[in-house]
Formats: sequence, structure tokens, C-alpha cells
Amino acid sequence: MKKITLLGATGSIGKQTLDVIREHHHLFELYGLSFGRNIDKAIPLINEFKPKKIVVQDIETKRNLQNIVNHDYILVGNEGMIEISADQDTDVLVNAVMGSVGLEATLCAIHANKQIAIANKETLVTAGHLVMEAARSRKVSLLPVDSEHSAIFQCLNGENHKDVNKVIITASGGSFRDKTRKQLDNVTIDDALNHPNWSMGAKITVDSATMMNKGLEVIEAHWLFNMPYDKIDVVLHKESVIHSMIEFADQSVIAQLGTPDMRVPIQYALTYPARLHLPQAKSLNLTEVGQLHFAEMDFDRFPCLMMAYNAGREGGTMPTVLNAANEVAVSLFLQGKIPFLTIERLIEKALEQHRTIQKPNLETILEVDQQTRLQVQAYLN
Amino acid sequence: MKKITLLGATGSIGKQTLDVIREHHHLFELYGLSFGRNIDKAIPLINEFKPKKIVVQDIETKRNLQNIVNHDYILVGNEGMIEISADQDTDVLVNAVMGSVGLEATLCAIHANKQIAIANKETLVTAGHLVMEAARSRKVSLLPVDSEHSAIFQCLNGENHKDVNKVIITASGGSFRDKTRKQLDNVTIDDALNHPNWSMGAKITVDSATMMNKGLEVIEAHWLFNMPYDKIDVVLHKESVIHSMIEFADQSVIAQLGTPDMRVPIQYALTYPARLHLPQAKSLNLTEVGQLHFAEMDFDRFPCLMMAYNAGREGGTMPTVLNAANEVAVSLFLQGKIPFLTIERLIEKALEQHRTIQKPNLETILEVDQQTRLQVQAYLN
Repeated sequence: MKKITLLGATGSIGKQTLDVIREHHHLFELYGLSFGRNIDKAIPLINEFKPKKIVVQDIETKRNLQNIVNHDYILVGNEGMIEISADQDTDVLVNAVMGSVGLEATLCAIHANKQIAIANKETLVTAGHLVMEAARSRKVSLLPVDSEHSAIFQCLNGENHKDVNKVIITASGGSFRDKTRKQLDNVTIDDALNHPNWSMGAKITVDSATMMNKGLEVIEAHWLFNMPYDKIDVVLHKESVIHSMIEFADQSVIAQLGTPDMRVPIQYALTYPARLHLPQAKSLNLTEVGQLHFAEMDFDRFPCLMMAYNAGREGGTMPTVLNAANEVAVSLFLQGKIPFLTIERLIEKALEQHRTIQKPNLETILEVDQQTRLQVQAYLN
Repeated sequence: MKKITLLGATGSIGKQTLDVIREHHHLFELYGLSFGRNIDKAIPLINEFKPKKIVVQDIETKRNLQNIVNHDYILVGNEGMIEISADQDTDVLVNAVMGSVGLEATLCAIHANKQIAIANKETLVTAGHLVMEAARSRKVSLLPVDSEHSAIFQCLNGENHKDVNKVIITASGGSFRDKTRKQLDNVTIDDALNHPNWSMGAKITVDSATMMNKGLEVIEAHWLFNMPYDKIDVVLHKESVIHSMIEFADQSVIAQLGTPDMRVPIQYALTYPARLHLPQAKSLNLTEVGQLHFAEMDFDRFPCLMMAYNAGREGGTMPTVLNAANEVAVSLFLQGKIPFLTIERLIEKALEQHRTIQKPNLETILEVDQQTRLQVQAYLN
């Protein structure tokens, strides 16, 4: 029985992780669970899965939860997440929180030799060198949950890393893929949240519309697969059927395909190297799909992707700034405080004003992350 | 240095195998070579690769060759092929002859513990149970060279056979894919030989047009990958970019893609599990290709495929009859003696008239093969 601690249980990935645990309850047990403030969503999960330990975002949520649920191990905030992630009874940490908030918990879990299923790309974007260094030195497996990175990971099965010519990440184009830049002037929050293929959380859906999501994935792939940026391509593929590909030295290309169901990569991260049945997931029927389309990425149309490549190549604290500025800008957009196109302008400004610190330690990263957030907020005043 | 014996050196696969050997001459040496009667094509190959042993189809060809080339080890016919295939100095046998003529040489090479790169699907179709039984008992690797089977083999890399839901073989549809059955009445040999994607030998190009090639591949996949027929699907994919796919238990699909270049699977069969650079092969550019199409296989349009499934499921000597009848019928078509649609009628008749012998030994197979050939010839009288 694998004991799982799940950070971000009430989010989209969290919910689907619980689907997988439910399906294979003879193999997996939910040991610990964290969520933010969404008590209504959390209570049925707590009642069903009976986790030994619970973490909530703040004292107030803890108090409210205690009024409803009789549980004697409710922790709070970052310290709580760190405790349950590195807990001696945890076998696997599934990091499915949104944003860079899961970073320290992930690092502590690695140091405690836990297996990590990482659905949180911001962790690797903001501190990839620290996370990968820790994972390597502890010989800890970092198993990707993102569909693209799970695809790359699956395509590397039984292959030799040195034989890789390039990684080809596919991009659906997001909610606004058929709009020109001019047409983006007046788009609404609802428009942005209407993703053509995937049903996901709000932040990642906006990230898909700006193509920043693909940019974060490029940086994530760089770290996860130790791949130089020159060997990471992005190609537009609107059906999201091919989740990503690898071209090898002999020009052979291996691809992973499927219907858009995050439970497939989540389960694979939990069962690797084995595969289990997943009755809920729909079989891919290519004759029903009929056609797959591919087009070159347009960096002028999607400047966030270019900013991400540039920040990734620059390295050091630059990706931290990219990620923090993006998190704040997307949040401002979702609060209705800025129009869609201002997201990229705020990120651009933050990147321009930052002087990179190379090889930053965790303290420096957290500091730069915090500074960037305040700075981007301040642009509005 | 791997010493290679190549059966069928002047054919299309033979030529491309020599391209690979030429490219990696520090790794591979052509030890033995066989060809039929095409001396003009063979002489430059003999001069360039200087094989220690040569096999030709008959005494007359041997005499003609000796008049031109000074070589003291020229053998003849089936016995010659058997000798060089099982030769103690041969490391790898590349079986690239056309039709079931390579069967005995392949069996002898397996018994002599040679690694086998098998480009000759007829060998497995006609005597799959004998070949696989021998390979298993000798622990000999049978590495597929057919692009579809190489794709399946590559998709199985690092995976567990028991996790396979199904194998999905792609079919371009061949030269006549856009024609109705009615329009097939008056097609010519030249029409049939004009394959839209692949440049191959005449027999396999006609097999593609009748879809028998895919039928033979289904039977080949059944044997190579120990896969029941219910788990082998065929899907029409006119671009031939995805060479084949596997769906696993978790609904994840792994596919192998590439430009249509047989040197990729040939090289992989020679270098597996490593991959080497292959400068001659073109990188796949999906944004240039633009679209991939998929459609359901139409068994009414392509009855040869259904005949192959049925013969495969029946087993025993039935696939031997299927293959022998097809070889003769295609040859008669290529000689201009029968129209295109008569190919399938002759095969159908041969299958109908055969009473299956289950678990045939080699002698029985060779006998049924011979009988079928005579019988199909006789249908014309």
C-alpha cells in the first residue's frame, strides 16, 4: 500500500488524483491532504478518504474546519505542508498546488527521500536547479504529472538520453488561438477560461491563452529532462491529441497520444514503471478525431513564450521573476483589475527591470519571488 | 565489428541495408550477400563491399558472374542461402528476400543463434509458429525491419507486454486508395506501382494496393509480438507519418513517427537497443506536413485484409496458402496475365479450397506452399 500525501486536494489535479486513488484503493491510501480555504469542497474528501493529517491555508480556515469536522491533526500554512510532505509515513508526495507555494514542501520531501509526483510546474520554473540538484543527490524520482511532461517521460522509456535530438512539446493554442492580437483587446475573463480541449483550473487556463503555460513547460522540460533550450521545440497542435514527442538521433520520433484526461498522467506518475487499467479514461479513437493539425509556433502572436525561452536561457533568478510576475498578473486579470493583454506587459516590465542573480539559493529565490510580486502589484498604482 | 549476411542484396531493402552499412562501416561489415539473377546490380556491390561469400539463384547466374568477378566463394540457391546465413562468421542475418523463399535460411540462422533482422514478412506469415518457437527456444532476437513492426517494437521499449491493450497498425491505402472498387476494373500495372508515399519493390507495392500487405503485417505482428488478432487493429492513415501505435492498459497511446525512409527501421534493427545518427534520413517536420488523416478501414473495399485476418485466425496451414496464392497472383498480375481484381479472386479461391492442417511442420508447410502455387497457376488454364 502506497501512502500518498496530496498538496492541493480541492484543485483540478487534486480531484483527479483522488479519482485515481479511489479507483485503486487496494494500492493507494491518502495519508495527508492540503487545501487552501475551500472547506465546502474539502469536507466530502476528508469524510471519504479519512486522511491522517490535514493542512489548511490559515488559522481561520482551521477554526472553521474544526467546527465541522472532528479531526485532531489539522496543520496550517507552509510549515504544515512541509511537515506532511516529509512525514515519515508518506511514501509519495503529489504536489498539485497552484503557483510557487509548493516549493519548500517539495524540497523537504526530496530531502526526506519521498517519491515526488510533480503537477506543479512553478516549482521547477522558479527553482529548477535546486530541486533537480536535491533530487539527483538523493536519487529521488521526480515523476511529471503535466500531460506534456508525462508524454516526454513515457517517450523516453527504454531509451538513452544521449540519443535525443530534440523534445517537441505540443501546444493547443489555448482559448484565443483563432484570434489575432488585435482581437485580444476586448476579451473577457469568461472568454479566457473557455479552453477548447482541457478542463483545468483558472490560472493554468489563462496561462494557456497567453501561451505562458507552454513557456513554463519549456523551462520545466529543461530541468526535468536535463535538456538544453535549443533542443526543446514547441509546435501548435490544436487537437491536443499528441501530448508531446521526442526525435531521436536516427530521426525516429516517438510520441505519446491520448484523450485529454489528466488521470492518465497522474496515474502513471503513481504506478510507474507499471501501467494499470483506468476504466474512467476514454480510449483514443483516431478515426473519430479524423484529422490532426500542426502549425509553426508564432512568437509574435504569443510573446509570453519567447519571454519564457529568454528567461530560461538567461537562468539564475530570471525564471523566478517570470513566474512570480505571471502569477500576480494572471491573478489581477482574474480579479478583473487588468485587461488580458496587460498580463504580458506586466511580465515584460518585471523581466526588464530585473538584474539576474546566478546560482541563487533558496533564500534568494524566495526573496526575489516576493519582491517581484510587490513590484508587479505596484505597477498598477 | 558486426558481420552481416544480407539475403536479397539487390532489392529495395537490400540496397538500403547497404546504405546503413556504408554509413557505419566502422561498426558493420558485409560478410555474405545473396541475390537472384540481377548481376548488373550486384557487381558494383560486390566490388564495393567485398563480401567473403556470395549466393546467387542458379548455376547459370553463377557462371555468368564468374566470368566477370574473380571470387572463389560463390554458392547457389536455397542451400547457399542456408550456408551463409548459419555461417559461423555471420553475426547478424538480414533477411530481405522477397516471398517465402527465405524461410529455411532464417530457421537455420536461428538454430545457429544468429541475431535476425527480418524484412521478409512472408517468412513469418507462412511459418510463424515454427520461427517463433525456434527463436524462443534459442533465445534469439527477431528484430523487425518492416516500418510498422519496427514502430511497434519501438513503442514497446521499456514497456510490459501484459500492459498492451491493442496494437494499431497504420495503412496508407496504397496506390488505389482514392478509387472505388468499380474504378479498379481497368487499372494498369504502372498505376499499381505508383505508391503515394513509399518507394518499394514491385511485389510489396502491389500488396499495398490490394491491402494484402497490411494483412500480411497483421499476421506478422501476431507472431512477432505474441498478440491475439482481436488486439490488432488497422487504421487508414494516408500520410504514412505515424508508422504504428500501441494503446496501453491506462489508455495511453505510444506511437512511432517519421519520414518514409526504410533506412531508419533497418538501422534500428542493426543497432538496437542503441540509436545511431542517420544523416541520410530526413527529419520529420510536422508543421510542413500540416495535417494527419485517419479513417476507419473498409473491409468491403479491401477484402484481402479480411481474408488475411480470417486466415490468421484459422491458423495452421491457412496463412501459408494465403501467402503462396498471393505471391503467385501478384506475379501473374505483374506479368500482365491477369487484371488487378483477379488477384484477390485467385487468393479467395485457393483459401476456399484448402483444408487446414493444424500445427504443420516445415515439410508440410513447404508442401502446401508448393501445391498452392501450382494450383493458383492452374486456375488460369
